[in-house]
Amino acid sequence: MKKVLIIGANGKIGKILTNKMKEAEDFSPVAMIRKEEQKSYFKDLGVETKLVSLEGELDDIESAVKGLDAVVFTAGSGGSTGQDKTLTVDLDGAVKTMEAAKANEVKRFVIVSALGADDRSFWDKSGIKPYYVAKHFADRTLKTIGLDYTIIRPGMLKDDAGTGKITLEDPMSAESVQREDVAEVILTSLRQDNTIGKVIEFNNGDKNIEEAVASI
Amino acid sequence: MKKVLIIGANGKIGKILTNKMKEAEDFSPVAMIRKEEQKSYFKDLGVETKLVSLEGELDDIESAVKGLDAVVFTAGSGGSTGQDKTLTVDLDGAVKTMEAAKANEVKRFVIVSALGADDRSFWDKSGIKPYYVAKHFADRTLKTIGLDYTIIRPGMLKDDAGTGKITLEDPMSAESVQREDVAEVILTSLRQDNTIGKVIEFNNGDKNIEEAVASI
Repeated sequence: MKKVLIIGANGKIGKILTNKMKEAEDFSPVAMIRKEEQKSYFKDLGVETKLVSLEGELDDIESAVKGLDAVVFTAGSGGSTGQDKTLTVDLDGAVKTMEAAKANEVKRFVIVSALGADDRSFWDKSGIKPYYVAKHFADRTLKTIGLDYTIIRPGMLKDDAGTGKITLEDPMSAESVQREDVAEVILTSLRQDNTIGKVIEFNNGDKNIEEAVASI
Repeated sequence: MKKVLIIGANGKIGKILTNKMKEAEDFSPVAMIRKEEQKSYFKDLGVETKLVSLEGELDDIESAVKGLDAVVFTAGSGGSTGQDKTLTVDLDGAVKTMEAAKANEVKRFVIVSALGADDRSFWDKSGIKPYYVAKHFADRTLKTIGLDYTIIRPGMLKDDAGTGKITLEDPMSAESVQREDVAEVILTSLRQDNTIGKVIEFNNGDKNIEEAVASI
């Protein structure tokens, strides 16, 4: 039974992932959330919460990580806040969680990034270049910080029901991917150690998620 | 004679540094600037210019770096632009110049950072936390990218005439430092190879710059 801290558990992917882990027999999720009023959702699910801000002290994040087996970072400042939050949450907030994991010897770390996060010409066309800069440097830091990382890079996110299928080949040519399928890729990555040290770029496709992730 | 690309040559420190290098017998400066109208200042000085935007193509930055011996990065988006520029200029712009230097095997790279750029509790008090996040991650990337780096971290910058003296000990306790002295620390670092792989945190003090830099 892997105890996993889900950072950004109250987000859309975070909630789906928390539910999936709670149902699974091999995972025990702990939800890291930012606001008191977000607690009840997880309490009703029977999932432990840690109330910690990514903009707060590193010590508090370290306390939340302590004693767990893995971290999933799926938080985001969102489109409605300013670029200051892009820097302090999406970049430095993410890196603080990596540092906290490292300090506590919680080696396994999965981050939800974005398709195109290494492609500067794509950023220029995206209309949200600062977001991609932040995601790029969070990922880049993760690659060198000394954790057993997996970087998950889905395309445009949709709320429709999952299909259980993705494509890893030429993912930029597909348009989008369901959040439920992203959560499934995260779970599958945590189960399959071949994903350590890998970047998984994907979108909706025709390959079973377990097989696709096993093939990377 | 070291040929040095000064990125941000039109800035306050950049101009002082360009003048100092032009006067020195062991340096030949090349000024990287962003705007056509900035050219005349350097033409009058007899200094070659490269017109390249840090927000532009990596290829253009690579062309500017090619064939030189060292790079000094002293550009900054400044306080009057938005946080989007903090991400695209101070962070990603800086890192693109590192990548360009690396691709061209221009190993020697000096960056002007800021005192406190590794101290998150200081960022929180500074009122310009996003700027420190950007500077921190630019520096952090430089440390791992495989260049012969020196990271220059002055305190609050003043326009008064230089004193030729700094302190490296407890620099946070001093208040500020003159831009002219910062330019002198950059020059001295390029002359002294003991500064490779080092971070120099300093402020106004009572030690001769050459001696202080030799002692790090």
